[in-house]
Amino acid sequence: MIYVTRREVFSASHRLHNENLSTEENKALYGKCNNDYGHGHNYVLEVVVAGEIDPTSGYLLDMKQLKSIIIECVIKKIDHRHMNYDVEFMKGIVPTTENLAVAIWTQLVDQIPNGKLHSIKLYETENNYVKYKG
Amino acid sequence: MIYVTRREVFSASHRLHNENLSTEENKALYGKCNNDYGHGHNYVLEVVVAGEIDPTSGYLLDMKQLKSIIIECVIKKIDHRHMNYDVEFMKGIVPTTENLAVAIWTQLVDQIPNGKLHSIKLYETENNYVKYKG
Amino acid sequence: MIYVTRREVFSASHRLHNENLSTEENKALYGKCNNDYGHGHNYVLEVVVAGEIDPTSGYLLDMKQLKSIIIECVIKKIDHRHMNYDVEFMKGIVPTTENLAVAIWTQLVDQIPNGKLHSIKLYETENNYVKYKG
Amino acid sequence: MIYVTRREVFSASHRLHNENLSTEENKALYGKCNNDYGHGHNYVLEVVVAGEIDPTSGYLLDMKQLKSIIIECVIKKIDHRHMNYDVEFMKGIVPTTENLAVAIWTQLVDQIPNGKLHSIKLYETENNYVKYKG
Amino acid sequence: MIYVTRREVFSASHRLHNENLSTEENKALYGKCNNDYGHGHNYVLEVVVAGEIDPTSGYLLDMKQLKSIIIECVIKKIDHRHMNYDVEFMKGIVPTTENLAVAIWTQLVDQIPNGKLHSIKLYETENNYVKYKG
Amino acid sequence: MIYVTRREVFSASHRLHNENLSTEENKALYGKCNNDYGHGHNYVLEVVVAGEIDPTSGYLLDMKQLKSIIIECVIKKIDHRHMNYDVEFMKGIVPTTENLAVAIWTQLVDQIPNGKLHSIKLYETENNYVKYKG
Repeated sequence: MIYVTRREVFSASHRLHNENLSTEENKALYGKCNNDYGHGHNYVLEVVVAGEIDPTSGYLLDMKQLKSIIIECVIKKIDHRHMNYDVEFMKGIVPTTENLAVAIWTQLVDQIPNGKLHSIKLYETENNYVKYKG
Repeated sequence: MIYVTRREVFSASHRLHNENLSTEENKALYGKCNNDYGHGHNYVLEVVVAGEIDPTSGYLLDMKQLKSIIIECVIKKIDHRHMNYDVEFMKGIVPTTENLAVAIWTQLVDQIPNGKLHSIKLYETENNYVKYKG
Repeated sequence: MIYVTRREVFSASHRLHNENLSTEENKALYGKCNNDYGHGHNYVLEVVVAGEIDPTSGYLLDMKQLKSIIIECVIKKIDHRHMNYDVEFMKGIVPTTENLAVAIWTQLVDQIPNGKLHSIKLYETENNYVKYKG
Repeated sequence: MIYVTRREVFSASHRLHNENLSTEENKALYGKCNNDYGHGHNYVLEVVVAGEIDPTSGYLLDMKQLKSIIIECVIKKIDHRHMNYDVEFMKGIVPTTENLAVAIWTQLVDQIPNGKLHSIKLYETENNYVKYKG
Repeated sequence: MIYVTRREVFSASHRLHNENLSTEENKALYGKCNNDYGHGHNYVLEVVVAGEIDPTSGYLLDMKQLKSIIIECVIKKIDHRHMNYDVEFMKGIVPTTENLAVAIWTQLVDQIPNGKLHSIKLYETENNYVKYKG
Repeated sequence: MIYVTRREVFSASHRLHNENLSTEENKALYGKCNNDYGHGHNYVLEVVVAGEIDPTSGYLLDMKQLKSIIIECVIKKIDHRHMNYDVEFMKGIVPTTENLAVAIWTQLVDQIPNGKLHSIKLYETENNYVKYKG
């Protein structure tokens, strides 16, 4: 068993706001992350695939292929967009890093041609990150 | 002459859009940076002060003091905000990295207690940054 | 199950020295890390909490809360101090990175309000780090 | 149980080419990684050892000792060399990152004096890395 | 005057060898960098352009345009290649970091559409880099 | 003219304390940096040499030689030591980053075999650094 990881970066904005809570509850819960117009981050995404090495190629998976899958299924849909208004796969989801990691997992889990999706690591800032293993 | 640098980070969103241009011109000029709802970054700001070492303290400037000045004059006004709507010192300015670096310079230039502001380095992403020396 | 990580940095000094060993044994065991006056590092600490996402907040844990806990329980007690003389929770412990990671675990394990402490990652330098899972 | 990690860097070149495939098959499989004269990387290697803390030393393992083992068993044999022609332990192996990680594991697994080799993490670029746990 | 920087990465191999020196002289001068089959690096290239901000766009230069120029004039010609055999613009040049930085300057200096090429920063490893200002 | 930079790292401890000031003045001036037992950092040192490329070697300076000079003149004298008690070249100097950068300059300025020492960049933490050009 081997684990290969591909790292990609995207820039997006979000506002933490739960429609089922009042204005005051949202402000109390999310603080400045609830500011009206939102804010943004350079998200760093690491996608880990686990499986066996193909004896002919010496690859678990061609990194160029994994890169293409991440770009098609995630980056093109979220990069330079606002998660609350403009990203189909985040519709109706409060865009915390936790929820975003789970949503990215869902985008990718059925698209891996060799091996299986093992985990998603998602940095929101240099000091905060989330890991999800399905 | 010695140069001391303090690094701070903030997260903000912006939309590149010039009100004096048409919708089509904006789209042609800024591409995905002109998307309606904006996007965001983790900006990394480096503030460089130049001057002479005080023989008593051995400091050009107390870094804790420089940190406080940057937080008061820049970070509190822009962190977790949208530059097009919610940042006083960016009002009416297209929020490119170039213009933002100049605006941050203006915020800081008269606030340095010892030495003089030498330059502003501003990273928008890990691949793009701007330097401004006044 | 999701894993959230908060990164904090502190600067401290230490001297590797076991009181139960002779001067020669300490020097043989620890080399320059046994120098009389000690030396220091910028330690990078990553605290990982594991648990389930709260469906209302979308958080496992508010990162601002996790940050406060780490600052109260660890950073305020060790930052800018000498571990051999001036850090209560390191009293009588040889301050290797291994022992320090275990001691930080003990400081934090009962303080996590949601989820459970999963692991402590502690970088002593850019080339050496330790992980502890309890 | 504690996990200690030592990071080392080496620079080497390689060409992805499987002798059992035709020129066209190699080109189709490996693309520019199959270019005739090869190319190279600054590989970043992280070696993780797992075990228990020695109560006398406070170490699982002296990092200076782990560093020496990695340098003797890996770095001296591969640094500033071409993996296809000039590295004994890669003879007959297609030098993908996956295969290289496994080969480095084999070099190290019987050399760890305390604890056991837990995993090898190998960065080929800042965007691609592989993990192997035996 | 403002300075904008674009960072790009490429992987290439080289062998330090001066055809005008004997085998022994080359070995004495370059050591392991003269090994027969060469070795390689992940080079990090920073290209700095200096000029004035266009008042309409707020740009000195569109970063996407600068990126395209660097890819066309440098990356496509050197990435995944061996500088001694396979890179037109390094023909007959000993591929030290110093000479490579000058050669990249020559590739780019006449291609900058707004502002002027200010400097080239080229990292060979995380510990060694070169800067050239023309 | 070309600029080559070598990066080295050392770990040391210090206490900011001016013998000519009272206990209260020292505490007011330096805060926690004046704590009795000192604290420490992983200092990152960048040494920049400026000069012309030797047409035979293609080097301004052999990086292995520059590395040796820095290790002999700086690292061996300060690494794993306490600057207030145990570093000859810091005797009687308040060990601020500013003063340390100047002292390192003095250690190196007459030792550069080709080209001239151009500047010293010294990181005390990831957020604070100093540059000195003589």
